[in-house]
Parts: sequence; structure tokens; C-alpha cells
Amino acid sequence: MTETVTKAQTGTLYGIGVGPGDPSLLTLKAAGLLGRIAIIAYPAPEQGDSLARSIAAPHLGAVAEEIPLRMRFDPAQRADAAYDAGAAAIALHLQAGRDVAVLCEGDPFFYGSFIYLFARLAPRFAVEVVPGVSSLTAAAAVAGHPLTTRDDALVVIPAPRPEADIERLLAGAEAAAIIKLGRHLPKVRRVLERLGLAGQAICIERAGQPGQRVCRMDAVDDQGTPYFAIILVHKRGQAWS
Amino acid sequence: MTETVTKAQTGTLYGIGVGPGDPSLLTLKAAGLLGRIAIIAYPAPEQGDSLARSIAAPHLGAVAEEIPLRMRFDPAQRADAAYDAGAAAIALHLQAGRDVAVLCEGDPFFYGSFIYLFARLAPRFAVEVVPGVSSLTAAAAVAGHPLTTRDDALVVIPAPRPEADIERLLAGAEAAAIIKLGRHLPKVRRVLERLGLAGQAICIERAGQPGQRVCRMDAVDDQGTPYFAIILVHKRGQAWS
Repeated sequence: MTETVTKAQTGTLYGIGVGPGDPSLLTLKAAGLLGRIAIIAYPAPEQGDSLARSIAAPHLGAVAEEIPLRMRFDPAQRADAAYDAGAAAIALHLQAGRDVAVLCEGDPFFYGSFIYLFARLAPRFAVEVVPGVSSLTAAAAVAGHPLTTRDDALVVIPAPRPEADIERLLAGAEAAAIIKLGRHLPKVRRVLERLGLAGQAICIERAGQPGQRVCRMDAVDDQGTPYFAIILVHKRGQAWS
Repeated sequence: MTETVTKAQTGTLYGIGVGPGDPSLLTLKAAGLLGRIAIIAYPAPEQGDSLARSIAAPHLGAVAEEIPLRMRFDPAQRADAAYDAGAAAIALHLQAGRDVAVLCEGDPFFYGSFIYLFARLAPRFAVEVVPGVSSLTAAAAVAGHPLTTRDDALVVIPAPRPEADIERLLAGAEAAAIIKLGRHLPKVRRVLERLGLAGQAICIERAGQPGQRVCRMDAVDDQGTPYFAIILVHKRGQAWS
């Protein structure tokens, strides 16, 4: 680490939200930055392609180096090692005065893995976060399901939470989005049924991505629901009621 | 109403999120649509300029007609009359086969007045909602305050809610955004202090707009906080902890 290098001489780390899937849902700012920044980093599965990179692909300029941050989906292993390695690789470029763009599905600060790079690099380097369209509002748009009006409270609940947590959180607000659904669908369905909300809940799979699907809860199969599925529900049925 | 006209012959209503304020935070899709749709509508105060229109201005093409939806900020009067009149004016264009773009600050379905036009027009006309960057994630980006990681629950709480509601909702989730702050700041501050969260709350005024300001709760004046201010708070202090 070269502590004598000041922030003014170093590159800037850009956390760039690339939106939920449709490349036309990038912001003008994101597209402009991707056209000029030659070092890109992005989360990727242990093997295979990165969703964030595929969304950004039409807007990339002349890329000099790619830093895939390969995550293992192993709950027993903390991701710290991958973030440490990724942050170190990115820091080398920033120290040499080169900007780095980290591609983030949706918005960088809304359940984004960029947050762990931000925690490691923001103390030492200039960082700019470019907000993006989140899967939350993209799913609402696709489903024709307004999220909230007036003084509604909205709660976003990750489906891996314990059943009692989900029930408590759902019961307390007028509107809810249940995210990271995957294999947790049967549990979520039980809670919605107990609260009398199953009839008005909508499930959106892969909003704005290939294979997008919108259906009512009673038409959703308990098996095979993708991780990137969201359930939206409003207690009044429709937010405008 | 010409009931013999089918949806195929009528125009499409576009609800277009123009983002939180910075015109470069429009999506490519929004900018493209605004460049070609000649009839635009937008919420506006009873007198003066529309924020949504000013954000969209650099991207507007040849506009043939503008339909300002002027809202009275009178809590005693329901806005139904303004929405009825706006929907009727928009319907005339749609029936004649002309597309209409409604400009929406942030995202159309996240506390947006577009929802009331959608309720009136979606049963009769083709509608496409173009999601936008919300003030929620824009404020987080500006403040360098990640909203949520892993299985955090996030609750969005409008500050006009009763003090007991705000306390209950805040107590139940790991992360919170308190919106529509304005004159409700003293009440919100009391709740944050009772929950021991005032020291880690951040207030963002006019995220991405002229006059943007980020400060800690203890530096915020109880007087003069704008309506478009947001408080962000995470119970762990930082979302990545």
C-alpha cells in the first residue's frame, strides 16, 4: 500500500447500478461512464457468466481489464475472502490513477454485493455511487402493481428470514415486497394465507430479464421458483383504494 | 367515450420515471420515449413550475401539447377532481390514437401521483410503466450510506404517520428510510432518540437536486427541513457490519 499517494492522484471507484435486466433501463450516467472506463469488475457465479456484465455489455467501451468477483453460494463459507481479493485487485488500479467501474445488478446500495467493496475501499479512495433502477420498482412496473400511495409504509422482506419474522413484518405495514424467494415459497405462501393476503399477492419472476413471468400466488408452483422472484402485496388490494 | 374503439387503435399511456432530480439519472428508455412522444402530462403545484418537467426538459422532443396536473396542497380537499380532469384530458388523446407520456419524479409506482391516473386509465387503454431511479436509492448513493445487505428487512415510513406508528415500524426492521419529512422532523427525532438511533441517522435533503445537503441528525435544524428530505438509518450503524 502506497500511503504517500493522495486521493487526488488516485483513480475513482464507481459503483454503477445497471438496473434490473433490460439494458435500456441503465441510466444515461451509467451508460456514459461505462463507455469510458476501461477497468471493470462485477460479481459472477463460481462458474459461468455474470448477469451484471451481460446487462451492461451493449454499453461497454474499450475494456482493458475485467475483474470478475466469483462468489461461492455456500452458506457455510463467508464471502470475505472473495471481497478481500477483489478489493485488492481493484486497489492496484486505483493506486495507479486508473478509474474502476463495478457493475451492480439493480442498485449498488440495495442488497448489493458492491457494499462489501465499498466498505473496504471507501476509506482510502474516492468513490462515486451511481444509483440504478431496483428490481423492486421494476417488478412493480412489469406487474402493473403500484407499490405505495400517500402515507403507506412499505416493508422489504428477504424470504430466507424465519417464518415468524416474515409474518410480523408483513402484518405491520400496508405494503410489502418479499424478495430472494427461491425455495422459500412454501413458507411465504403459508404466511400470506394466514394473514388472508394470498389472494391479492402477485409473483414476478426475473423482472425485465429473459424468462420474465408475472402470476398470481395461486398459480405459482412451489417447486422451481427462481431466486430472483419477488412477491408484491398491498393490504388494500390496490394501492390507490 | 367511444367504446367501439379497441386498444389496438388507441394510443399508449406511458408512465415514465424521470428519476430523483439529476437529468443524467433518466434511463435510456425514458429519454428515448420523451424524445418521440409529443403529448406530455406532469404533476405541478397550483402555481409555478413542475419538478418532473424540469428534470425531463433536456430530453423532450417536439412537444405538441402539455397537460399540467395542478395539485392543491390542501389536506381538506381530496385530489380526485384534479385526477379526474387530468385523466379525461389524457383520454381524449389516447382515444385519437396519440401516445401520452406522464412524467413522474423518481419512480411512477413508488408514492407516485401517476398511480391515480393509472387507476382511471388502465382499464380502458394500453399502459406501459417505465421504472425510474427512486429518491430512496438516490439518497443512499449521495450519502454514501448502503441501505441493506444479506437478509436485512427495510421499511419505508412516511413521516406524517403518528408517532407511535413510526416507533413501531422503526423498531421492527434492521434498516429504515423515513420520507416526506418536512415539518415532522421534531417528532421523528424524538422517536430516533428513544430507540437510541439518532446518533447513526443521516438526513439527505433534495437528493440529486439543486440545494442537495447531507448531514447527521444532530446537525439538522428542526425548522426549515424541506418536504423532500429523507432520513436513512441502519441499526448496525453500517449495513456491512
